[in-house]
Amino acid sequence: MSLLTDFDRKDRKALGEELHAFARELFPICRSITGDGVRRTLGMIQDRIPLQITEVPSRTQVFDWNVPREWNIRDAFIKSANGEQVVDFKRCNLHVMNYSVPVHTRMSLEELRPRLFSIPDKPDWIPYRTSYYKEDWGFCLSHNQLLALKDAEYEVCIDATLKDGSLTFGECYLPGRTTDEVLISCHVCHPSLANDNLSGLTVATHLAQHLAGRDLRYSYRFLFIPGTIGAITWLARNQAAAERIRHGLVLTCIGDKGTFHYKKSRRGTAEIDRAMMHVLSHQTASPEFLEFSPYGYDERQYCSPGFNLPVGCLMRSVWGTFPEYHTSADNMEFIRAAQLAESLRVCTAVFDVLESNRRYRNLSPYCEPQLGKRGLYRPTGGGSIEEELNARFWVLNLSDGQHSLLDIAERSRITFPMIRDAADLLHENGLLSVVSEDAANEKSSRDAAPSVAVARRGQS
Amino acid sequence: MSLLTDFDRKDRKALGEELHAFARELFPICRSITGDGVRRTLGMIQDRIPLQITEVPSRTQVFDWNVPREWNIRDAFIKSANGEQVVDFKRCNLHVMNYSVPVHTRMSLEELRPRLFSIPDKPDWIPYRTSYYKEDWGFCLSHNQLLALKDAEYEVCIDATLKDGSLTFGECYLPGRTTDEVLISCHVCHPSLANDNLSGLTVATHLAQHLAGRDLRYSYRFLFIPGTIGAITWLARNQAAAERIRHGLVLTCIGDKGTFHYKKSRRGTAEIDRAMMHVLSHQTASPEFLEFSPYGYDERQYCSPGFNLPVGCLMRSVWGTFPEYHTSADNMEFIRAAQLAESLRVCTAVFDVLESNRRYRNLSPYCEPQLGKRGLYRPTGGGSIEEELNARFWVLNLSDGQHSLLDIAERSRITFPMIRDAADLLHENGLLSVVSEDAANEKSSRDAAPSVAVARRGQS
Amino acid sequence: MSLLTDFDRKDRKALGEELHAFARELFPICRSITGDGVRRTLGMIQDRIPLQITEVPSRTQVFDWNVPREWNIRDAFIKSANGEQVVDFKRCNLHVMNYSVPVHTRMSLEELRPRLFSIPDKPDWIPYRTSYYKEDWGFCLSHNQLLALKDAEYEVCIDATLKDGSLTFGECYLPGRTTDEVLISCHVCHPSLANDNLSGLTVATHLAQHLAGRDLRYSYRFLFIPGTIGAITWLARNQAAAERIRHGLVLTCIGDKGTFHYKKSRRGTAEIDRAMMHVLSHQTASPEFLEFSPYGYDERQYCSPGFNLPVGCLMRSVWGTFPEYHTSADNMEFIRAAQLAESLRVCTAVFDVLESNRRYRNLSPYCEPQLGKRGLYRPTGGGSIEEELNARFWVLNLSDGQHSLLDIAERSRITFPMIRDAADLLHENGLLSVVSEDAANEKSSRDAAPSVAVARRGQS
Repeated sequence: MSLLTDFDRKDRKALGEELHAFARELFPICRSITGDGVRRTLGMIQDRIPLQITEVPSRTQVFDWNVPREWNIRDAFIKSANGEQVVDFKRCNLHVMNYSVPVHTRMSLEELRPRLFSIPDKPDWIPYRTSYYKEDWGFCLSHNQLLALKDAEYEVCIDATLKDGSLTFGECYLPGRTTDEVLISCHVCHPSLANDNLSGLTVATHLAQHLAGRDLRYSYRFLFIPGTIGAITWLARNQAAAERIRHGLVLTCIGDKGTFHYKKSRRGTAEIDRAMMHVLSHQTASPEFLEFSPYGYDERQYCSPGFNLPVGCLMRSVWGTFPEYHTSADNMEFIRAAQLAESLRVCTAVFDVLESNRRYRNLSPYCEPQLGKRGLYRPTGGGSIEEELNARFWVLNLSDGQHSLLDIAERSRITFPMIRDAADLLHENGLLSVVSEDAANEKSSRDAAPSVAVARRGQS
Repeated sequence: MSLLTDFDRKDRKALGEELHAFARELFPICRSITGDGVRRTLGMIQDRIPLQITEVPSRTQVFDWNVPREWNIRDAFIKSANGEQVVDFKRCNLHVMNYSVPVHTRMSLEELRPRLFSIPDKPDWIPYRTSYYKEDWGFCLSHNQLLALKDAEYEVCIDATLKDGSLTFGECYLPGRTTDEVLISCHVCHPSLANDNLSGLTVATHLAQHLAGRDLRYSYRFLFIPGTIGAITWLARNQAAAERIRHGLVLTCIGDKGTFHYKKSRRGTAEIDRAMMHVLSHQTASPEFLEFSPYGYDERQYCSPGFNLPVGCLMRSVWGTFPEYHTSADNMEFIRAAQLAESLRVCTAVFDVLESNRRYRNLSPYCEPQLGKRGLYRPTGGGSIEEELNARFWVLNLSDGQHSLLDIAERSRITFPMIRDAADLLHENGLLSVVSEDAANEKSSRDAAPSVAVARRGQS
Repeated sequence: MSLLTDFDRKDRKALGEELHAFARELFPICRSITGDGVRRTLGMIQDRIPLQITEVPSRTQVFDWNVPREWNIRDAFIKSANGEQVVDFKRCNLHVMNYSVPVHTRMSLEELRPRLFSIPDKPDWIPYRTSYYKEDWGFCLSHNQLLALKDAEYEVCIDATLKDGSLTFGECYLPGRTTDEVLISCHVCHPSLANDNLSGLTVATHLAQHLAGRDLRYSYRFLFIPGTIGAITWLARNQAAAERIRHGLVLTCIGDKGTFHYKKSRRGTAEIDRAMMHVLSHQTASPEFLEFSPYGYDERQYCSPGFNLPVGCLMRSVWGTFPEYHTSADNMEFIRAAQLAESLRVCTAVFDVLESNRRYRNLSPYCEPQLGKRGLYRPTGGGSIEEELNARFWVLNLSDGQHSLLDIAERSRITFPMIRDAADLLHENGLLSVVSEDAANEKSSRDAAPSVAVARRGQS
């Protein structure tokens, strides 16, 4: 049974609620690019899927970067003279600028002021700030909190550590019939932010659950990594695996109620790009397709010129364009069960395309074969005869060994599952032979692989 | 003189009336995919053009198909108890489902009802139905006729035969200077239907009349064949000829008052596609161009992947989209003399392009040659000097041995005849040499030919 | 410092006034395709830039043409019986049909009438007419002048000479680091017409002034030539130089207040075409891009099929489309200082692109290099950090040795100067190496060069 058919037998509403419940469990943890927040998060994922956890020591060189020191935080507050905690990390972990160095002192509001960040336009929201690569400290608070601060002296405390340790990431590898890989990558480095972190992470976990134990054409690799430095670290340590990546997706901001946005890979016409555009066009309302640009999430690293992997990025609302982005308003109300489930379904439908996209050869290429005498000139599924027959005629006409099923779906404007079902039926009836498990453009991505190797040799 | 110039000297109105008159003669005959109706039709075409008629025995294997048994019908009726013929084949041959097996019996209306077909929405029209490959019988009648039938017993008679005989088709071959062929194909298998059958057949006959005896670059092959099985039969018996087809057109539904629709060949950018789009764009109002799809008329067979011939389909209203399609309303009033004549002219204009499309080389390629000293810097025809000069400058500029005249017409947006006339004038004045009788993309269609041969060898 | 940066430090208003003042000096001279008017004009250009002046004897064969005899005029008039000069060359040199043969006679208005040209629609304007290659004479006058002529006898005098002499053109060659050339061509053959002649000529002169003495990548060749015959003459005598032309521009009608129109070279996607479209799109309002056509100015000759040089044509209002074209209304009020200066700037910006367009290789191609540790993750210019950083990421991502800076500017939609500045900064920081001084498509234009040579050999 196809991945998508199987998926569609499940209770979608229940799935959405599971996703949302998992996100709620993860929400309170104070994650960062290193530290125990990431470890706890990966542990909760490991409860659900087989996850190999890797620790990479601080200061390890990874390409042009070095793994940073590990950051952990126990508590933080700003306390007024009368002992009231006017800002309290325990109430919201966004209050501390992520990666703040430890501090415990007293200072006037005037001295403290440059280290306080708020959003005047959204006076109830707390912003999210980081300072990973420059030693610094600060507090984030709502603008109303800031306005309420009296011109007095305050006790300021960040009970954190920043010292040698390691960077942690998780990997779930599901072997398929081939070693060609599909990469799914999501970041696990944001504290209490729901859409920008947990939506991708929870959907990726469920995708792995759904794929685990199945007979799959591709091997699937799920990466749960801190943004930027995590992708760089993984790539630096796994160049051989990177060469096996045939298709890849970065998942982020896929839980809100916005329409889907797919950002294409640097290649622009990779099979993953075409599969995603086909699925979103046929199955979702008003999707938008964005050209590649070298900023965004970890597709930046996967699509750097030395790798140039066919990795795109699936989003609903685009990061940086919605007001809740990187604020306390990106919370558990901002992401929704139904939207998480729909995002899960879109990914499943795309993998469904990748799994069964192949090229066939029509064994009766001269004129049409007589479908009637085989009982194929009538509907076999629930669809209209016209639609089903059209799909069969399209598959017969374009199965010249050059066109993949996705090519045929694109040219005919018929959904991939209908085209695939037609091909299966014609194949069962001896009218088609499989030319290759490879779709036409998988070949080209393979052809591209040696250039990676050559470039690397050139560099060493 | 060019084909089109010659055509335009004729009395167009008279031509249209001739076409319509010929269609009227053919209209009453009960045609089917085999049988005497086709033979009588071909005989009437043979009175006008040289036609080789071929009989292919029933049960002959043609690719994946077998030639069906031959069907002939003498009479058919439904008679009420009082002897009244409530449905009478002699009044309209659509009344009998085409290829009905013989029957003579009495039955109640209730028993008969599943074999009666009408169009409730169009209560005065009789539908057209067939059952070629499944033994069956039935009657078609207007919905008003059906409603008037009393709940009584009826005598039902179809005096037909379905037995071994042959499938008949006609071929008119007009040899040209080369053995490269232009194919014109139309179906002759529909009974009293005017647009869907007779419009293509009559225009094709007149085209052959117009071309016969002329000095032609291409050889022209006109096929008058039963739909689907006729094309398959011809292709199965003429694979060598099929390889010589450089351009082809299926003609159907070209007599009604709709605007032109041209369905491109599977290749999409074949010279026939480009020539037709150029002619229709410049010479007709609001033409529409349809991408290839593997259903329709016999382009399905010519464009099957083993052949992939450059054959498109010219229509006015598109089959299946106008209410009169496959009903008794597709009659002699539905097609019109002026429209038939215009369709004839469009085909002539396209052949005019194919006949004279070639590549030239500018013999003064460095800067412009001085047209003034040759008397060429002034109009020689009736056109404006600006238009004529532009055509000359375009031909000189693009005649680098790579661009065909059709390429030049497309890029300059000047009509092909003006470009051709400019080329003729410049050639006469020694400013151009002929590079090749082949237009650039004829070469590529020739390059494609071996793959047909190879594919066939692979299959045998 | 880049050409454009340097240009933008100048006082643009003063530049515009200089351009306009130079045009005013040149305006009164009666130029033609040969003769002393051209010589005086070239002399005034030579006062400003190094100019090599060439005299080519009458009757010299140049490709398919011959250099015409030289025309000079001292005076011309139509005098009424009472001695009044009703038409007077000294008041406006457009009054005489350019290249009129000498005449001195008396004739009635009726006899004279066919030789008098006016514009009934614009009764105050004098048309501009020529008869270079057919011996003829005539007068141009305003329609009101014509209507005022009484039916009487007139004394008609054209005191001109048409005899063996020479054709004169000027060339300013500014050598660069390579012998690859940029061609700038303008015509100097029109009498008192401002936009159609002087606008191109004055801007070209200032461009040469601006480039002279600079360290340039390309060598620049400015041609000040009579239209058509001048370009043909130069090309016939300089085929080796023509092969070195990598980019070229014809400048004409660039002083009026219309928006810019750029007519692409015959190639359509040459680097000059792309550079001009990029500059005009980013820096001017509502530019329009015209496909190549083989009529217009001297791009006709440069783009003839034997040369097929990458030469486009920059205009504001398009010749022939504005009513003042080829009339006395194309005068010093019709062109404006600000528009001349803006045209000068556009050309400078295009040369700025050509000068620094090259391909780089990212030396840290695996993942992003860490910009922060190099101090590059912050703005260095006056722009926004986001824009500057985007430019750096785009350059890093696409610097794979295949993409030129212009490719990157096009794909990123960031201006070329921002992309170039980013590349310079990254190069200084050791993150990029120069792959080639050649942009990717310069290579292809070079590849095209041998075909010119081959074609020429074929002709000799």
